[in-house]
Amino acid sequence: VSTTSIRRAGAGIEPVQGGDLLSVPGINGAVAACGLYGTDRDDLALIVADAPRTAAAVFTTNRVAAAPVRLSRERIRARPSVRSVVINAGNANALTGPAGEAAALAMADRTEAACGGPSFVMSTGVIGVPLPVDDVLSGIDRAAKRVSGEAGPSIARAVLTTDTTAKTCAVRVAMGEGPRTVTVGGVAKGSGMIHPNMATMLAVVATEQPVDARSLQRLLRRVVDRSFHEISVDGETSTNDTVLLLAGPADHPSPLREGDERFDRLEDAVLHVSRDLAAKIVADGEGARKTLQIEVTGAASEVEARMVAESIARSVLVKTALAGGDPNWGRILSAAGNAGVAIDPSRIELKLGDEIVFRNGEPVDIRAELTERLFAPEFVRARLDLRQGDHRATMLTTDLTKEYVQINSEYTT
Amino acid sequence: VSTTSIRRAGAGIEPVQGGDLLSVPGINGAVAACGLYGTDRDDLALIVADAPRTAAAVFTTNRVAAAPVRLSRERIRARPSVRSVVINAGNANALTGPAGEAAALAMADRTEAACGGPSFVMSTGVIGVPLPVDDVLSGIDRAAKRVSGEAGPSIARAVLTTDTTAKTCAVRVAMGEGPRTVTVGGVAKGSGMIHPNMATMLAVVATEQPVDARSLQRLLRRVVDRSFHEISVDGETSTNDTVLLLAGPADHPSPLREGDERFDRLEDAVLHVSRDLAAKIVADGEGARKTLQIEVTGAASEVEARMVAESIARSVLVKTALAGGDPNWGRILSAAGNAGVAIDPSRIELKLGDEIVFRNGEPVDIRAELTERLFAPEFVRARLDLRQGDHRATMLTTDLTKEYVQINSEYTT
Repeated sequence: VSTTSIRRAGAGIEPVQGGDLLSVPGINGAVAACGLYGTDRDDLALIVADAPRTAAAVFTTNRVAAAPVRLSRERIRARPSVRSVVINAGNANALTGPAGEAAALAMADRTEAACGGPSFVMSTGVIGVPLPVDDVLSGIDRAAKRVSGEAGPSIARAVLTTDTTAKTCAVRVAMGEGPRTVTVGGVAKGSGMIHPNMATMLAVVATEQPVDARSLQRLLRRVVDRSFHEISVDGETSTNDTVLLLAGPADHPSPLREGDERFDRLEDAVLHVSRDLAAKIVADGEGARKTLQIEVTGAASEVEARMVAESIARSVLVKTALAGGDPNWGRILSAAGNAGVAIDPSRIELKLGDEIVFRNGEPVDIRAELTERLFAPEFVRARLDLRQGDHRATMLTTDLTKEYVQINSEYTT
Repeated sequence: VSTTSIRRAGAGIEPVQGGDLLSVPGINGAVAACGLYGTDRDDLALIVADAPRTAAAVFTTNRVAAAPVRLSRERIRARPSVRSVVINAGNANALTGPAGEAAALAMADRTEAACGGPSFVMSTGVIGVPLPVDDVLSGIDRAAKRVSGEAGPSIARAVLTTDTTAKTCAVRVAMGEGPRTVTVGGVAKGSGMIHPNMATMLAVVATEQPVDARSLQRLLRRVVDRSFHEISVDGETSTNDTVLLLAGPADHPSPLREGDERFDRLEDAVLHVSRDLAAKIVADGEGARKTLQIEVTGAASEVEARMVAESIARSVLVKTALAGGDPNWGRILSAAGNAGVAIDPSRIELKLGDEIVFRNGEPVDIRAELTERLFAPEFVRARLDLRQGDHRATMLTTDLTKEYVQINSEYTT
């Protein structure tokens, strides 16, 4: 699936070919196999910084948050600093009651003991099933003994569940006119719903640049809104979604702050890496063969722009039309009409690619072969101008295929 | 698909075997073929009352409302009375601009001239395609010449689009201790998305009982909330959804009003007919083989109960699990957690059938074969008690199958 249109690097941002989270100076890691899938695949990753790093995180809004989410959220609120991260695939440790709370805490404590703290826990996989905590703890011990700077690709594979491809990205960004550059690297997983119960999107992004904690959290909020919050595979937010951002040493005497021009450059680079990872998640969406980029402009507010874009991105009608290459643009307008926003059909304009298909309350008379051709590619772009204001929002979504239904209706325990 | 559990008649309500809208005294009709499908199938229905009837209607909340919706809504607000109804299938007359407005108005005028007014217009079918209005107008003329009391089954078939079965229901309800009964009859169509563009749910329900106009509109709102608003096939509201309720003659000197005990009996009967029609729409959902009834109890408010029930009913994860017979109750809880309601996972209780599967924040240890058996039947019942208050809501939804994707991704013009 092509996602080229959103992968353009900004000014002063250079991709690191084959780079990942461990391209960032001072970040190392390791993996281990704990048997959480009943096989010998690696299913646990440790990420270890040379010192406690200033950290910011964004978590799922799902009220049924998993034990690791509740633990990590509480800890990072109390102290925005992380030295070691433990991630397991194969079990989400969600809806697992007090035993799940104890398991998440044990993972945090063991990681802290083995790699230094503060630690941060992430889990993804089946929900409602007790985590085999002893297997995970011994996996942490084994991994901790082989932490190195070479583990980037192994970490990217160990955190996958139903994903078919590893998802990494790294860039270098110039921080001024001189030669000084800073690295931003990341790893993510996510592919729609994690068999058999849950969608989970996890991402860790890091940089060596010291940043003030409060500025870092605000930066991450803005970046997530324009990257991971702009994708939808199946319209569901999991119990475990977590994005963690690590900056330079937490005890740095003069961290970068909002307001500094170099801060904006760093933010651009973090946004670039996050958008790249988000696009890779969509492109690897369960059963997906095509991507639809929805741009809503001319909204009366940013909230309304996002509501309209999300309504279109969630629409199973739009997503099945995309799967079939059926240029039913009426479904896009109907989904927009269902967003709960007071749009005016007589003012809106809809473009597929660069062709206007609807304007002034009625269809534009263009040849059917043209609309078919506009809807056929792997990457389709729809632009809806509401002509009510100057706010905008973008969403990336996938087609809904029979393979998606197959993946999510199979029962295998 | 079985829907028996919601078809129980209330006290004093007797089903009319094989009954339909024309079982109601004074309601007649006819059909015609206008060629809107390019075939000779009947695609137009007239419903004609012996005199102007008090009328109430509920319309789609979609902001991209079709021309007939905008016309009928404006007219019934100005004057809550209807004598003749014209319904066409095969073309929704939606997103058709000023020509569509003129076409809807021409349909209303021709129906009024041929059958008496006030008239009411409904359309369903493809959107964004100009309505061949001359063909429709001549169909109205032909149908008007053969209006009779025998057309009930033909009307139920003429209004169908991708539906596979006609949907009718009629009951008699005792209005007091004596022998006096009143008839309530209805017809509906709807099957998820109408190929190729749109879901539309249309229903007409009638009774000969004279009812005060304001009381009738309030009755219909309550009934729709507990019937047509409790079903979801694909989570989308069409541009054309309309429910019309006709009561007795609009000029009756002493219509029934809210507060009268007989009014409550009538409301029960209208609710019974509406729920029966709604269940038939779900059972005929595109590609659907199974129905899930979701009951949310213990909510802090009715709005919150409905938000949770709707989030579950819309979840493609829940619907694909249902399709596969996969008892992934964790998906139900995750969807509940995504409803935007502050639920507390440590308090909620989830039942499949009569078995508790989740309580006190953790799974109940029951055999996998049992949960599989609970999720296997054509009619599955899930009950979620939030333990936060005493409000409740119910939703009926279908499974999401590969056939649904097939139906909605095929391109045929």
